[in-house]
Amino acid sequence: VRVGIGDDAAVLSEGAGDSETLVTTDLLVEGVHFNLEWASPYQVGWKAAAASVSDIAAMGGRPTAAVVSIGVRPRAREYFVKSLYEGIAAACERYGVVVAGGDTVRSDKAVVNIAMLGRVMKNRAILRKGAVPGDIILVTDTCGDSAAGLEILKTFPKTEITTPFMKRLVARHLVPEPSLAAALAASASLGPTAMMDLSDGLAADLPRLASRSGVGAVVFEEKIPTSPDLRAWARRTNAPFASLAVRGGEDFNLLITASASKIDEMERNIESAGARSTRIGEIVSRERGITLVSSSGENLSWPNASFLHF
Amino acid sequence: VRVGIGDDAAVLSEGAGDSETLVTTDLLVEGVHFNLEWASPYQVGWKAAAASVSDIAAMGGRPTAAVVSIGVRPRAREYFVKSLYEGIAAACERYGVVVAGGDTVRSDKAVVNIAMLGRVMKNRAILRKGAVPGDIILVTDTCGDSAAGLEILKTFPKTEITTPFMKRLVARHLVPEPSLAAALAASASLGPTAMMDLSDGLAADLPRLASRSGVGAVVFEEKIPTSPDLRAWARRTNAPFASLAVRGGEDFNLLITASASKIDEMERNIESAGARSTRIGEIVSRERGITLVSSSGENLSWPNASFLHF
Repeated sequence: VRVGIGDDAAVLSEGAGDSETLVTTDLLVEGVHFNLEWASPYQVGWKAAAASVSDIAAMGGRPTAAVVSIGVRPRAREYFVKSLYEGIAAACERYGVVVAGGDTVRSDKAVVNIAMLGRVMKNRAILRKGAVPGDIILVTDTCGDSAAGLEILKTFPKTEITTPFMKRLVARHLVPEPSLAAALAASASLGPTAMMDLSDGLAADLPRLASRSGVGAVVFEEKIPTSPDLRAWARRTNAPFASLAVRGGEDFNLLITASASKIDEMERNIESAGARSTRIGEIVSRERGITLVSSSGENLSWPNASFLHF
Repeated sequence: VRVGIGDDAAVLSEGAGDSETLVTTDLLVEGVHFNLEWASPYQVGWKAAAASVSDIAAMGGRPTAAVVSIGVRPRAREYFVKSLYEGIAAACERYGVVVAGGDTVRSDKAVVNIAMLGRVMKNRAILRKGAVPGDIILVTDTCGDSAAGLEILKTFPKTEITTPFMKRLVARHLVPEPSLAAALAASASLGPTAMMDLSDGLAADLPRLASRSGVGAVVFEEKIPTSPDLRAWARRTNAPFASLAVRGGEDFNLLITASASKIDEMERNIESAGARSTRIGEIVSRERGITLVSSSGENLSWPNASFLHF
């Protein structure tokens, strides 16, 4: 084991081949990680598989195979298991993952565990550790959409979620798309010094990367990319959209640090893959801590990482 | 994926190396698969890891790495997770497995999922499929001890389980030892045509092997190996010990079929590894079904597979 507990996935060096095995495991519990009033079993399955794909992608790897464990009430068994598996299978097929095995058992609360394997070229896994002062901080895609989708699900009965932007935000929450293409493109450029997926939100995840790398960071709030949908939701609710963007989790976009010398090529690679990335700040020395700079140039204290999954 | 859902583990062929990856996943739920009144968290962890090692061993493979997911009530968290991990780590260390990662989440009922990886030489995985008429059926070690241990736990308060043979049977149930050495020794002889571990008991598992292989079987009840401890328990309870031996699960010993030409070498290999195997019957054509022959030579109908794990 080259890299164990604490990164997006573990890296196993086995044998003399030119690649290494990645492995990750995720346990989702009904009422803690998903809510069957809002999400169909299919959507729960899709999201579980997507989250695992995202973990492998965040290491710069390609996911290959998954094994699935499902716990379910005996009576709900047939429909629930079938739909859940269909969602898992659809996401796995989309991202080139073979469902290689499974275990279905009895449980009062529904639980799903996905263990996913991946491959990465030897010594090319991109860890949370590796960022150095002077590196540029980027995120792919946009931030906060999934959290806004969750807010919408909490605010409105499903039948009232009809506005297109609200439906898109809810979809970002229920059937997220991991950033596999962007991650492979970034990785191919050899640009990233560190990388992770934003599953708990920038507020929680950037400090993890910084801690692993032994560095600090400066992030400019106004540079954090947000979608027109998120801004529309923020206007409607009079909420500060920057707060959703910084604290919202489960976007499954990437947080990347890159050296200045390689960043242009990396950005071109990501764009060629049909994805987008945005520079949001810079890695600084550990002593300087982690700072959020407001649009007026004020240094804000780093926001609490209070995102609650559902 | 060469072999998917339905065997002890899945076989993944990746790249050009001379070995294949095995992967298995097992989900254990409090109140369904384990009972914290009887088993300590350490014992639950040991048994979960041992069961996964047994799955890899039953393919003829060597386990290499595990990823662990744990769901637990917030209040029980610290002690439970620590002890559970210690049990998992102890079993993994014993059988050469590295714990490569994990996920700990909140859950009302305690749940544990172990996904375990293993390696096997290319095209050398031993499946449930492969037995042909004329093959000899063997089991390693003894049958029924774990089920007797479970009966004892159900019958007596823990403070009254003091007799040595009862303590040993309870230990067989709570901290079982997978048959890794026997499996690797059997595999090295190229003797096994099919193999699986007896996790649900002979009554449930032999029909699975027979079904996968498309064959029938004849098993001689009096040849099924039992321990002196099991026989002592049976005498005390006036229970037919053969019934525990045939129907009891979670012994994690091996069910093997072997061709007559290779069986002597295989048995010597198993013995050299410090294990034992016993011939209990023969594979016959599918049309003849699965038969249990009593000590008086009577053909009995195959027993119901009613073992309930706890």
